[in-house]
Amino acid sequence: MLPIAVDAMGGDHAPGEIVAGARRAAEELGVPVVLVGRSADLTDTGDLEIIEASEVIAMDAEPGSSVRKMKDSSLVRAAEAVRDGQASAMVSAGNTGATMASALLRMGRIKGINRPAIATPIPVPGSTPTTLLDAGANAECKPEWLVEFAQMGAVYARDRFGIERPRVGLLSIGEEAGKGSPFVKECFELLDQPGWASVASADWIGNVEGRDVMTTEVDVIVTDGFTGNVTLKTLEGAMKALIGRLLVGIDTDDDTRAAGDALSGVLGEMMTELHPDSVGGALLLGVKGVCVISHGSSSADAMTNAIRVAAEMVEVEMVDHLTAAARPQD
Amino acid sequence: MLPIAVDAMGGDHAPGEIVAGARRAAEELGVPVVLVGRSADLTDTGDLEIIEASEVIAMDAEPGSSVRKMKDSSLVRAAEAVRDGQASAMVSAGNTGATMASALLRMGRIKGINRPAIATPIPVPGSTPTTLLDAGANAECKPEWLVEFAQMGAVYARDRFGIERPRVGLLSIGEEAGKGSPFVKECFELLDQPGWASVASADWIGNVEGRDVMTTEVDVIVTDGFTGNVTLKTLEGAMKALIGRLLVGIDTDDDTRAAGDALSGVLGEMMTELHPDSVGGALLLGVKGVCVISHGSSSADAMTNAIRVAAEMVEVEMVDHLTAAARPQD
Repeated sequence: MLPIAVDAMGGDHAPGEIVAGARRAAEELGVPVVLVGRSADLTDTGDLEIIEASEVIAMDAEPGSSVRKMKDSSLVRAAEAVRDGQASAMVSAGNTGATMASALLRMGRIKGINRPAIATPIPVPGSTPTTLLDAGANAECKPEWLVEFAQMGAVYARDRFGIERPRVGLLSIGEEAGKGSPFVKECFELLDQPGWASVASADWIGNVEGRDVMTTEVDVIVTDGFTGNVTLKTLEGAMKALIGRLLVGIDTDDDTRAAGDALSGVLGEMMTELHPDSVGGALLLGVKGVCVISHGSSSADAMTNAIRVAAEMVEVEMVDHLTAAARPQD
Repeated sequence: MLPIAVDAMGGDHAPGEIVAGARRAAEELGVPVVLVGRSADLTDTGDLEIIEASEVIAMDAEPGSSVRKMKDSSLVRAAEAVRDGQASAMVSAGNTGATMASALLRMGRIKGINRPAIATPIPVPGSTPTTLLDAGANAECKPEWLVEFAQMGAVYARDRFGIERPRVGLLSIGEEAGKGSPFVKECFELLDQPGWASVASADWIGNVEGRDVMTTEVDVIVTDGFTGNVTLKTLEGAMKALIGRLLVGIDTDDDTRAAGDALSGVLGEMMTELHPDSVGGALLLGVKGVCVISHGSSSADAMTNAIRVAAEMVEVEMVDHLTAAARPQD
C-alpha cells in the first residue's frame, strides 16, 4: 500500500500530537505513513518520511481563498500526493473547510457525484455506528444530492462497518412520507424511487427522526449539511452535559464517590465507546481518494485511529465501490 | 384565576392519567382546573367540573381538517373556553398539530406575530433550561419570523425562568456571522439589527451551535421548526441511549451492581432533572392565550407539571408581555 499522507501541521495540537499519532500508526499498526509539513518544525518523527510543504493554513482561515493562494501548504500538498500517486489517502485534523477544498480541487470529484459530503459515524451503544451524512460539507443542498449521499453512505457503511445491506433513512420530523420541510419532502420523493438503492445494495426505510440516530433502527441517515452539522454538535453537547452531570452526582458524598470508584472501569469503557475520537474521524465521500477529517482537537490516539481508518478504506477499495455505485447520469 | 382547561381526551394515556394529573394539580397545588371531554368516558374526576365535548381528535389525525370538521372535539372546545373567557389557559397531551390549529383558529394570533412557535425548555444540568423555539410548529420559516421567535422566547424565558435579560442566539453551524445556510445568514442579518432586543429586554449574542444547547452559554435559541424539532428529538435520543448504556455498564457484575445501588439516589435525581416531563411541557407562543403542549406519552405527573406551568404563565401575565414585545408593524 502507498503511504497515508498525514497533514502534520493541522489541528489544535499540531504538530506534536499529530506526529506522535502518525508514528504510533506506523510503528504499532504497521500502516505506511508520510508526514506533510515544514520539516524544520517537526521533531521526533522517527523513521517517517516527510513531504516538504512550507505553508500552513490556519484553523480559522477562509477555506477557499487559502487553498487557492497557499499552493505549498501542507493540506494542498497532502491532497496532491494522493492525486499524483505518492500517497493512498490523506488525513488531517486541520481546517475542515480547507481540507475539503484541497481534496476537491486536487483529487477531483467522482463521476456522477455533484458534491462531496462529510460522513460521520455516530456511536450506537452495543452496535455498529450510524453513519450521518452530510455532516457539514454543504450548508445548502439540492434534493438530488441527497440521493448521491444515500448511495455513498450505503457503500461506506458496508465497507467500514461490514453492514451487508445498510438501511438508509432520511432525517425528518415525523416518520410518515408527508412529514418535513418542502425540501425534505422533495428529497423523500426522489429517494422513494427505485433504482439507487439496488445499485448501492441498500434498503431505503423512509423518514427517520433525531431520536433514531443513536439506535439500531437505521444504519445510514442522509440530510443536508446544515441539519447534519447541528445534529452532530447537539449530540456532542448532550454527551458532555450528561457525563458532566453524572460526575457531579457521583461527587455527592463519600458513599457515592466510593460507588463511582467501583464503576470507574465501566464508566471509562462507556466514555470510550461513545467518544467521537474512538470511531476515527469523518470521511469526505465523493472525491477521488480517501480523505479522513479528524477533530480539530485530535489527540495522538485520535490521529492513530484516523490513520487506521484511512488505511482500511484504502485496502477495501472504498473509492472504487463509491465510483461503481455513483451511476453517472450520461 | 379562571380555571385551566385540560383536554381530558388527548394523549396516549388519556383519559386516566390526564384526569389523575388534573386532580392532583387541583387538589395538591390548588390550581383551578376544568376538564374538557366526553363526560361518559371520564371516571374518578373528583370535584372537577367538565366542559362537554362529544368528539375526540385522534393522535394521528390530520390536524387542519380535523379541527375544521370536529367542532365539538375536546381540543376545539378547550381553545374556545379560553377565547370565551371560561378558562385562562388550555393544556393538552393530544395531537400536537391539532392543538396548535385549535389554539390558532379559536384564540387567534397576537398582533405583530406572523406565526406562533413552539417553545420547548431543554434541561441544563445545574442551571435554568435553555428555551428552544421553534421546536416544530413551522417546518419552513421566513427569516423575519425568527425575529418574532426571538422576541417571544426572551419574554418567555424571563416570565418562566426569571432570567432578567435573556441571552438569545441563532442556531447555526459556526459562531462567526457568515456561517450557516443562506436562510440562517438572512436571519442573522435581521437579528443583528438593533431594536427587537431592546424592546424584548434581551441580549442578542449571535450564532450558537448544537453543542451549546445544554450549556449555560445561552438562554434562548431560535431556529426554524424543522431544525428545532430535529434538535429536540436528537437530544431525547441521546439521553435515552446514554442512560441505557449506563445501566448496561452498571449491570456488569456484582460489584458494579452494588455501586449502582449506592448511586440510585443520585441517578434518579439526574434522570428527573434531565427528563423532559420535569420541565412541564412546551408552550405555543404567539396565540392570544396560554397553550401548553404536553408530550403524547404524558403521565399524571407530567400533566400536573404542565398544568402548573400553565397557571404560572397566566399569573405572570405572559400573554400581555408577549403582546407588548411583539411591536406590530403598522
